[in-house]
Amino acid sequence: MASATISVVREVIDKALAEGRTALTAPEGRRLCEEYGIATPGEGLATSAAEAAEIAGKIGLPVVLKIVSPDILHKTDAGGVLVGLKSADEVREGYDTILANARAYNPDAKIDGIQVQQLVGGGHEVIVGAVTDPTFGKVVAFGLGGVLVEVLQDVTFRLAPLSGEDAFGMLDDIRAAEVLRGARGAEPANREALAGLIERVGRLVSDFPEIIEVDLNPVFADANGAVAADVRILIGEKPAEVTRLPREEILRQMTRIFKPRSVAVIGASAETGKIGNSVMSNLINGGYQGQILPINPKADEIMGLPAYKSISDVPGDVDVAVFAIPAKFVAAALEETGKKGVAGAVMIPSGFAETGNVEGQQEIVEIARRHGVRMLGPNIYGYYYTPENLCATFCTPYDVKGSVALTSQSGGIGMAILGFSRTTKMGVSAIVGVGNKADVDEDDLLTFFEQDDNTKAVAMHLEDLKDGRGFVDAARRVVKEKPVIVLKAGRTAMGARAAGSHTGALAGDDKVYDDILRQAGVVRAPGLNDMLEYARALPILPAPKGENVVIITGAGGSGVLLSDAIVDAGLTLMDIPPDLDEAFRAYIPPFGAAGNPIDITGGEPPSTYENTVRLGLADERIHALVLGYWHTIVTPPMVFAELIARVVAEERQKGNVKPVVASLAGDTEVEEASEYLFEHGVVAYPYTTEKPVAVLGAKYRWARAAGLLR
Amino acid sequence: MASATISVVREVIDKALAEGRTALTAPEGRRLCEEYGIATPGEGLATSAAEAAEIAGKIGLPVVLKIVSPDILHKTDAGGVLVGLKSADEVREGYDTILANARAYNPDAKIDGIQVQQLVGGGHEVIVGAVTDPTFGKVVAFGLGGVLVEVLQDVTFRLAPLSGEDAFGMLDDIRAAEVLRGARGAEPANREALAGLIERVGRLVSDFPEIIEVDLNPVFADANGAVAADVRILIGEKPAEVTRLPREEILRQMTRIFKPRSVAVIGASAETGKIGNSVMSNLINGGYQGQILPINPKADEIMGLPAYKSISDVPGDVDVAVFAIPAKFVAAALEETGKKGVAGAVMIPSGFAETGNVEGQQEIVEIARRHGVRMLGPNIYGYYYTPENLCATFCTPYDVKGSVALTSQSGGIGMAILGFSRTTKMGVSAIVGVGNKADVDEDDLLTFFEQDDNTKAVAMHLEDLKDGRGFVDAARRVVKEKPVIVLKAGRTAMGARAAGSHTGALAGDDKVYDDILRQAGVVRAPGLNDMLEYARALPILPAPKGENVVIITGAGGSGVLLSDAIVDAGLTLMDIPPDLDEAFRAYIPPFGAAGNPIDITGGEPPSTYENTVRLGLADERIHALVLGYWHTIVTPPMVFAELIARVVAEERQKGNVKPVVASLAGDTEVEEASEYLFEHGVVAYPYTTEKPVAVLGAKYRWARAAGLLR
Repeated sequence: MASATISVVREVIDKALAEGRTALTAPEGRRLCEEYGIATPGEGLATSAAEAAEIAGKIGLPVVLKIVSPDILHKTDAGGVLVGLKSADEVREGYDTILANARAYNPDAKIDGIQVQQLVGGGHEVIVGAVTDPTFGKVVAFGLGGVLVEVLQDVTFRLAPLSGEDAFGMLDDIRAAEVLRGARGAEPANREALAGLIERVGRLVSDFPEIIEVDLNPVFADANGAVAADVRILIGEKPAEVTRLPREEILRQMTRIFKPRSVAVIGASAETGKIGNSVMSNLINGGYQGQILPINPKADEIMGLPAYKSISDVPGDVDVAVFAIPAKFVAAALEETGKKGVAGAVMIPSGFAETGNVEGQQEIVEIARRHGVRMLGPNIYGYYYTPENLCATFCTPYDVKGSVALTSQSGGIGMAILGFSRTTKMGVSAIVGVGNKADVDEDDLLTFFEQDDNTKAVAMHLEDLKDGRGFVDAARRVVKEKPVIVLKAGRTAMGARAAGSHTGALAGDDKVYDDILRQAGVVRAPGLNDMLEYARALPILPAPKGENVVIITGAGGSGVLLSDAIVDAGLTLMDIPPDLDEAFRAYIPPFGAAGNPIDITGGEPPSTYENTVRLGLADERIHALVLGYWHTIVTPPMVFAELIARVVAEERQKGNVKPVVASLAGDTEVEEASEYLFEHGVVAYPYTTEKPVAVLGAKYRWARAAGLLR
Repeated sequence: MASATISVVREVIDKALAEGRTALTAPEGRRLCEEYGIATPGEGLATSAAEAAEIAGKIGLPVVLKIVSPDILHKTDAGGVLVGLKSADEVREGYDTILANARAYNPDAKIDGIQVQQLVGGGHEVIVGAVTDPTFGKVVAFGLGGVLVEVLQDVTFRLAPLSGEDAFGMLDDIRAAEVLRGARGAEPANREALAGLIERVGRLVSDFPEIIEVDLNPVFADANGAVAADVRILIGEKPAEVTRLPREEILRQMTRIFKPRSVAVIGASAETGKIGNSVMSNLINGGYQGQILPINPKADEIMGLPAYKSISDVPGDVDVAVFAIPAKFVAAALEETGKKGVAGAVMIPSGFAETGNVEGQQEIVEIARRHGVRMLGPNIYGYYYTPENLCATFCTPYDVKGSVALTSQSGGIGMAILGFSRTTKMGVSAIVGVGNKADVDEDDLLTFFEQDDNTKAVAMHLEDLKDGRGFVDAARRVVKEKPVIVLKAGRTAMGARAAGSHTGALAGDDKVYDDILRQAGVVRAPGLNDMLEYARALPILPAPKGENVVIITGAGGSGVLLSDAIVDAGLTLMDIPPDLDEAFRAYIPPFGAAGNPIDITGGEPPSTYENTVRLGLADERIHALVLGYWHTIVTPPMVFAELIARVVAEERQKGNVKPVVASLAGDTEVEEASEYLFEHGVVAYPYTTEKPVAVLGAKYRWARAAGLLR
């Protein structure tokens, strides 16, 4: 904004704040709007009939005339208001009428003049606003006025400031978007004007953090423009700025934490059942090749390794210290750890904020900050980083190396991640508990995983975000290259209440979270199992290059259900062009159905699957395949699985790299077949038509966010 | 309806039909409304100013006056229309004004009088209509007018005729229901008047099947009443009546089919790989104790059993004939089967309507009808009925006896049912393929399962219904005692398209299906896997006696996700009263959270789970428990599972019978623990917080439909 504008607005706000006010007056609000190019109804004060007509001509007809007099409070009673004057003549006459009425009403009244105000109210009634969200800061809201926003909550949010493109996106993001485009013969709204207004509101609240809330309600939007008929602006204390470490600094620390040359275990123990013993075993049995340094004041040696009384006794540098001691001993030990120059303190102990011990937690955060130690936790199971064979946890080692990094705010969910990983042999790069998130949070982890070549996708369970903007910034960067999957717990009002009682975290309105996570390009998982399945499948599926999805199915019944799932997942069943249709038809029985789904029918031999799938992979117009398998004697499950794996591999060799998912309907042999397919890059599930398509839908959501499908 | 009303309406419709019209005129439509007590704007023809005032007084002010003259076409141009006259004086004056205007406009015009019409338009604009649905026949629709119905499709359907209670239900069933109750300070609608109007529309279309469509749009509903401002009625040929067999007759036939004393296999074969061989093996190996009769013109003996050249050669009665011969031989064999007096023909062969051979299918239907044979299929895998050890199928035998009966329209889905059953050891009473549904359909099967003591729940996959009303009638009866789960494929527009190409079935608009299935009390499964899980779990869970659900969790993180799931499933987290809260608090650590979820925290011993779960089961105010388990060394998975199974069993002994579901978060041992719990009547899943709650939600949906929670 021009500095002149800034200083005008600054002056208005400072004056109001100086007067101890929390809201601007209507004229002040209009003044701000004017400075930021937000249209409000035109108005002017006339002291003659001719001047009234002149003003009306300038601001545009029709107009409203209102008497302006400190002595006439009830304007209407005094005959001091005329609405809907449509011509200069009517305005002139009206001026005289009002003046006469006012004089008749109170002959002694001091009359300042007559206010001429543009009459607005045509077109669509919309609401544009801004709030200061506890997680995300300044957030812009847009919705259709009346029932739609108030009863159906048809509203959308974006981080402020926002681009013109984002503002246009908001117009399309409400359920009733069609209305603005002129559904039912209504006048379409001027989209440029409306998007411009939204963008300006975003700029205003970003330029002035003291603006806590803006409420333009209603805004009247028609083919000509968008005018804010009522302006309400709340002001207050500037929210505290979040301090963030420089990215390079975070990366340096996180690299030392994930790829440490040495790990100390504070509270290492030889006694089975103790956490300090489990951590030692897991480090050793997990195959960690760096130095393992047991710290225990009462031992000289633990599990065959020399022990130290204190971390300060360790010769040489220590990168990571895993804490396995009761909460009450943590502060002192952390102090020593800090002095030693450790990069990361992995704070397993509980007994901090989650049990009400907020002071204790603050104390250790301060110690860590003072020494530049990054702290994971407290109240966590620890962390795994498989490329380094590092299992710094009291759970069991996990060694299936792969390319997804998972994090969880809850220990229970962390255990579910571990169990699911083990049972599905999901290849992971990291599993990290963040627990109370007193220091290291999702932003730090994303910053590391962004540049970590061992990680191709990130999946995060979270109940709140300490710094919503920091997360969005980090996520936006990562999403360009790798999917970021988020399970945001506390989705519903009831869920949020439970989050409140669990971690004392302030769970924001889920709609704000949902819109902003989407804006950040994050793939949100609707539930725990979905997050796990996305995490397992997304790194395996290649990115699609377009929106054309084709179903090839042996079971017509699966075809119908897969089509339902396609729509549910926001995917598009390709409209097969005639030549391609003919090409498919050549491979299937005459009573099979081409089109899409392509129903090859149930009794077909492997060659029919092979021919149609190969065609689907080879034709460039097709971008993804969904397979429906039906268990028959002619094409048994493992024959199907091996065949598809081979065809997909062969076509990939030829450069035909496309996501392929499969739903297997059949007797129990389809379980083994599904596993085989998964291991060979085809995401396959038995007994469900929903899951393979949901996973493909998640991959598409990421691909769109990453800009791969434009 | 009174016979006078009936005969008036009959006369209007017959006249219009006789004139070859497909729509009634506006006055005819209003006449029908009048007869059925559906308010339309009052009106009358006045030939004097005094009469105009009198009419206006009768129909209610304000009114509109309109000149009635065959010689004045453009009434407004002639000054022949006055709107919004508010008093008798205004009406009298208006009458004279219009008359004078008209005479000035055209002195020669013949003037019939002046129409006095009630002015409507206040309150809420709603739409009430009725359509003739291909599946369900007469269906009533209700929605809020304007954007809500046309852009957001906020509309609801019910079978006509409908009860007053159902009509009231429609008012609450739209998303914007609050609007009618007076949201945002609007005038609340008169609910009695509006529900009454809906009910009357339902009665009208039910009384006169020739009414194909009714469109009352808009209806203005305010605090005083509901008036249909515009009436549009389409008429046409009376839809063909569906003939239904008497219930006793269906039951007699179905009982012979499910509990046959003898089963013939038409096309029995000793040759491995042939369908006639697989069917024979499955009957024998499945352990069927009735007579097995191989029919084969070329064999004397098959698999150790005497074979017959033709079914007519069999001495004594035959209850079921399983067909395992090519389509072209079916008609002749069916003719003989009919002559033999067989109750059921299990028509495995394909090659009928599904491959375009509609005539062939019609032919065999006619043969079956002629002989009173009920035919299952064609184009099916056969059927299982475990209480009789009956596996009349070419798939593999299945013998885990249990209490859910499953049916599928698609063979592929049938195979998925079989595989899922086997892998989860789901106890089933029956698995039935209905395929092309040329004869036996879901209604027949529901009629049998209704009275079958071996069946406690029914789960059906279907793509269409031959007789929607027959299904609803049967489902309503069954639902009173047993849950009916339906997976309706072709849910979405794209899905429906696929259904069309698959079976040629006309898939109706899914919203109609959805509302009417719900009205029938059916639990609709959103996808295949959901249907399977509901089928597995619902017979195990006892019915809840109230809406108070309580979460007891060791993992706070699971508690939050379980709360999300509770809301998604339409369940209610109980508001724990203070005394109960105190009682729970006594068992959990001070930093645990009571309230709901009750977070017992992670490190607790088995006794904490035991105490809290026992309290949850014993307190009568709690109606269902959702458990969140967190794998720890203190309470390992199997310890938790055995403990919960024991506590639940003990409390059941004491009469505390409540549904209990559990989500287990932990390492792979939680899989065995979940299975153990399932086997002991607690529905438990590993790695998901959604599934146990979704299943509980399904049980609740049934319990509400069965009237158990009123």
